Amino acid sequence: MPFFKRKIQFNDDLGFSSNPVVKNQRALNVDGTPNIERTGLPWFKFDDTYTKLVTMGWSRFFLVILIVYLLVNTLFAVTYNIIGIEHLNGAMGKTPRDQFFDAFFFSAQTISTVGYGHISPQGFMTSIVAAFESMLGLLAFALATGLLYGRFSRPTSKVSFSKNIVISPYQDKMGLMCRLVNLRRNSLIEIEAQMYITFNEIVDGKSKRSYYPLLLERDKISVLSLNWTLVHPINEDSPLFEKTLADIKQAQVEIILILKAFDDTFSQTIHTRTSYQEDDIKMNARFEMMYYHNSEGKIVLDYSKLDSVIVEG
Amino acid sequence: MPFFKRKIQFNDDLGFSSNPVVKNQRALNVDGTPNIERTGLPWFKFDDTYTKLVTMGWSRFFLVILIVYLLVNTLFAVTYNIIGIEHLNGAMGKTPRDQFFDAFFFSAQTISTVGYGHISPQGFMTSIVAAFESMLGLLAFALATGLLYGRFSRPTSKVSFSKNIVISPYQDKMGLMCRLVNLRRNSLIEIEAQMYITFNEIVDGKSKRSYYPLLLERDKISVLSLNWTLVHPINEDSPLFEKTLADIKQAQVEIILILKAFDDTFSQTIHTRTSYQEDDIKMNARFEMMYYHNSEGKIVLDYSKLDSVIVEG
Amino acid sequence: MPFFKRKIQFNDDLGFSSNPVVKNQRALNVDGTPNIERTGLPWFKFDDTYTKLVTMGWSRFFLVILIVYLLVNTLFAVTYNIIGIEHLNGAMGKTPRDQFFDAFFFSAQTISTVGYGHISPQGFMTSIVAAFESMLGLLAFALATGLLYGRFSRPTSKVSFSKNIVISPYQDKMGLMCRLVNLRRNSLIEIEAQMYITFNEIVDGKSKRSYYPLLLERDKISVLSLNWTLVHPINEDSPLFEKTLADIKQAQVEIILILKAFDDTFSQTIHTRTSYQEDDIKMNARFEMMYYHNSEGKIVLDYSKLDSVIVEG
Amino acid sequence: MPFFKRKIQFNDDLGFSSNPVVKNQRALNVDGTPNIERTGLPWFKFDDTYTKLVTMGWSRFFLVILIVYLLVNTLFAVTYNIIGIEHLNGAMGKTPRDQFFDAFFFSAQTISTVGYGHISPQGFMTSIVAAFESMLGLLAFALATGLLYGRFSRPTSKVSFSKNIVISPYQDKMGLMCRLVNLRRNSLIEIEAQMYITFNEIVDGKSKRSYYPLLLERDKISVLSLNWTLVHPINEDSPLFEKTLADIKQAQVEIILILKAFDDTFSQTIHTRTSYQEDDIKMNARFEMMYYHNSEGKIVLDYSKLDSVIVEG
Repeated sequence: MPFFKRKIQFNDDLGFSSNPVVKNQRALNVDGTPNIERTGLPWFKFDDTYTKLVTMGWSRFFLVILIVYLLVNTLFAVTYNIIGIEHLNGAMGKTPRDQFFDAFFFSAQTISTVGYGHISPQGFMTSIVAAFESMLGLLAFALATGLLYGRFSRPTSKVSFSKNIVISPYQDKMGLMCRLVNLRRNSLIEIEAQMYITFNEIVDGKSKRSYYPLLLERDKISVLSLNWTLVHPINEDSPLFEKTLADIKQAQVEIILILKAFDDTFSQTIHTRTSYQEDDIKMNARFEMMYYHNSEGKIVLDYSKLDSVIVEG
Repeated sequence: MPFFKRKIQFNDDLGFSSNPVVKNQRALNVDGTPNIERTGLPWFKFDDTYTKLVTMGWSRFFLVILIVYLLVNTLFAVTYNIIGIEHLNGAMGKTPRDQFFDAFFFSAQTISTVGYGHISPQGFMTSIVAAFESMLGLLAFALATGLLYGRFSRPTSKVSFSKNIVISPYQDKMGLMCRLVNLRRNSLIEIEAQMYITFNEIVDGKSKRSYYPLLLERDKISVLSLNWTLVHPINEDSPLFEKTLADIKQAQVEIILILKAFDDTFSQTIHTRTSYQEDDIKMNARFEMMYYHNSEGKIVLDYSKLDSVIVEG
Repeated sequence: MPFFKRKIQFNDDLGFSSNPVVKNQRALNVDGTPNIERTGLPWFKFDDTYTKLVTMGWSRFFLVILIVYLLVNTLFAVTYNIIGIEHLNGAMGKTPRDQFFDAFFFSAQTISTVGYGHISPQGFMTSIVAAFESMLGLLAFALATGLLYGRFSRPTSKVSFSKNIVISPYQDKMGLMCRLVNLRRNSLIEIEAQMYITFNEIVDGKSKRSYYPLLLERDKISVLSLNWTLVHPINEDSPLFEKTLADIKQAQVEIILILKAFDDTFSQTIHTRTSYQEDDIKMNARFEMMYYHNSEGKIVLDYSKLDSVIVEG
Repeated sequence: MPFFKRKIQFNDDLGFSSNPVVKNQRALNVDGTPNIERTGLPWFKFDDTYTKLVTMGWSRFFLVILIVYLLVNTLFAVTYNIIGIEHLNGAMGKTPRDQFFDAFFFSAQTISTVGYGHISPQGFMTSIVAAFESMLGLLAFALATGLLYGRFSRPTSKVSFSKNIVISPYQDKMGLMCRLVNLRRNSLIEIEAQMYITFNEIVDGKSKRSYYPLLLERDKISVLSLNWTLVHPINEDSPLFEKTLADIKQAQVEIILILKAFDDTFSQTIHTRTSYQEDDIKMNARFEMMYYHNSEGKIVLDYSKLDSVIVEG
């Protein structure tokens, strides 16, 4: 008899493999990206440059820009020296090292279009290279403008999920619960949630990885102003019915959460995902209330309570 | 017996609390934002910088830019002075104050890429700082470009709601009516409206805040060219049936209006909300017609009549 | 008996008035905008600045930019002269007129961040104004960047409608037909069309403007690669059934066409509208085929035939 | 008897002609664009400039910018020479050729707002032209910024389709299969596919081009993390039932694939199309598995296997 009931062939649908999981390998990373490695194409064929530049962290992004800026100026500095440093009016450097830096700073002043003019190009070759460099500079910073806007306007959400997923009495049964909150002032509306469970099981004598939906008591809300607690009632139809924590651990359970919302402030549809592993499940625990009315009767939402769990009994 | 009929559990759905309201605390502000305070996270964790810069008022936005501009230039002015003011060719200042301002204006000319050149950098350190500053300047204004575009292209609406919501005879019964108009030349199409009512009531001996939908006679129109009057017929199914103004005031009624539309000009879905409190309700009043045909037969929409209410009998 | 059958109350829905039309006043202009005048608000309250700048014609747009550029430079030129032209190093003008232009060109060189430097600021006041002006310049052109991008990326369509709408035999009855074509290389997919008719009629002894839908034989296509001919079959259910051209003219008929499509190239939903008046209706005419196979078997779409109508018998 | 069964009138819907195909002319190009030529309008009426600049290849795009840059500078160089080269302070050229280049480089320094200042404008006419040119320069690069952002943020996909479409045993029948993979790190979700077949057939003694849908075993998946194999089961309802490769070749078959997906990273709906011709069909071949588990249990997707086909028996 299989471990859980009501199996549905969700493998294709969620884009996962049906091979059994070894070494506690998760399907989704905590940030919701699929835990997959990609190979077999030369790096330049992936054509992810824009996506990468837009999705990488800020410090890395500025580092990339700084490095490109230095490299391009070095390249042009070398070019101006090859043409002849004497064509840079006002460059005073006597040693090759000083002459390189004169050309380097002239290049920086050209590509950024500052153009103080205490160093200026003379002669056809140097002038045409400088004219080309200033055009390139404007294009490069046009690109930077696009990238910066792309980074800011990207439909990202800052939905924060509770660290744990708890199992506790719910109405007259047990319920599996986690909760989430919006870290931004953006209004999130028409929020929909889907929950799945995946684990190893033996089917026809073969070890397999199976995927089942976990029905939510409420899978859609209109507006997310406060926090939202997702509840999967563990009734007879649930794959988790009458399972112990030991059962769950042995089957290498992973619980997948898929969220879809409309960001009212920027008119964009947002998708976000996360997953919980066995160690994130707490038995007989419930979440502490996250909001209260202050002395003026106004509702106060306290983000510091998001992960606050009260273990019962 | 509860005060109103046909209660529906809309608390979760609208993201509001079910605690009774004290001191006339509203659920939604007039501009449609939830009347909620947020706490419990260090300020930098909210990550609302972009949202804030895009949604704040224009004068505050320009003030922020001006202050940042002054601060950054001050910072670089200090840096140039530390390296040594003698490395700024053409800087004539004798006193520390004048030397600071020489460096300050050189910094401004560098970061804005004006670069007149009557002051110019000399020596490695000053030149490299200036090269860095000009790059920073271009990035900063790339950012400003993105922010300005973000501010303009944001899916905002200028739907204006009538100041009052009136109750007056409608067909053979009474009706609750408010109206709205588009202040922009943008075409709004496929406009949908939802109306809710919330008030305090005693359920099972406990004071609670309840939420009910108010059915509209017509909740969707194709195009908003003129004004649109929303009508909730107060029939036997309405929570407002046979209620007096005194009943309404005592229950601390708030009427919530949620509007969704498609902005044809910018291809964006727009959501807007507002709410009316008891004091905004006028009994036995009706709205004055907002448009007329001029002498050429053309329809003229007169915005000044939006709030114009005729109190009857 | 009313002039037409199967009347539906579309007045609200299309956002039009139900007053009868005099002097051949149309509901929609040919470009699809509602033929409505707006009044009653101070001009600055309409808050249409961005919409206007983005939707106005190109020549007017550049004129606005040029005028603003000249005005701002004039303002700063006056300011520099008030502070004292002697604080502009290198300004040679002797007459007030020459001094104004020296300051004007210095201003232009500052706001555009060219900063040649043959004229340069001296003293605190002039330097601080110049620093402010260069910041303003960068912001202004950041704004221009946003506006230009907003203009280009706006979800506009270049769907062209046939000049005439024809009535000719269709299958075993008559049909009302017009056709359309995409002037751009953008792929338009999932195109939907709706047709309405509006005219004066006497209802209960009162002259009114009525609106009816005209059912289309096919109101949706997947892809618009060639041309699309819209056909309203004039059967017994049609308001046009057994009507003569004289009947149509007398009732001051206007036929309204609403089109919705998805622009595949820019991932935007596009709406466009047009309307035909009585004079645009041609009886017993049919459209000439718009495409043919060339000698290589490739399909050629000939845009010049869009309005080409063959009048029969 | 017609060649295939269950014909549906998809001609209109897919926007194709029903004329029979000669010389192996395809309906869709491999990149999914319709194989149609357009004529009959003056070139400037197509108004595709923005679309063209945004969709053309990168090298062509930069070439266009370079050429425009050179042309505009040439134009201004000529203008400055006409006004009089003596109004360019610091221009040393003696020959007309040198004077042209002095003006050309001054123009480049002005339009890019570098403004070194070793050449500077003198006199009203030259100064006003330079002021205008610097404004134009900023506008032009504002335009470039918009174009670059438009190019990057365009909803393009890099879905790669297998080179061949194979026919091989599937369950207890035959199946027509091709597969696809996402070359980008963008998350594609809610992916839908439609497959059509088109070929020549004789209907009522006339040769025609017909279009039929090919039902897919699964036409929608939630997430595309790995590869997706599309399967059309060739059962009795399929137009391909009991057809040989010779039958298929004779009828000049083209198989059309339409894909729709939501790009989670940029919140955009993406459409992509492709088509296979008879030569792309392989009989009794099946696709090699594209992913495996590495030694750590992590799934590895190997793009190099996309086209890897194993011919059986």
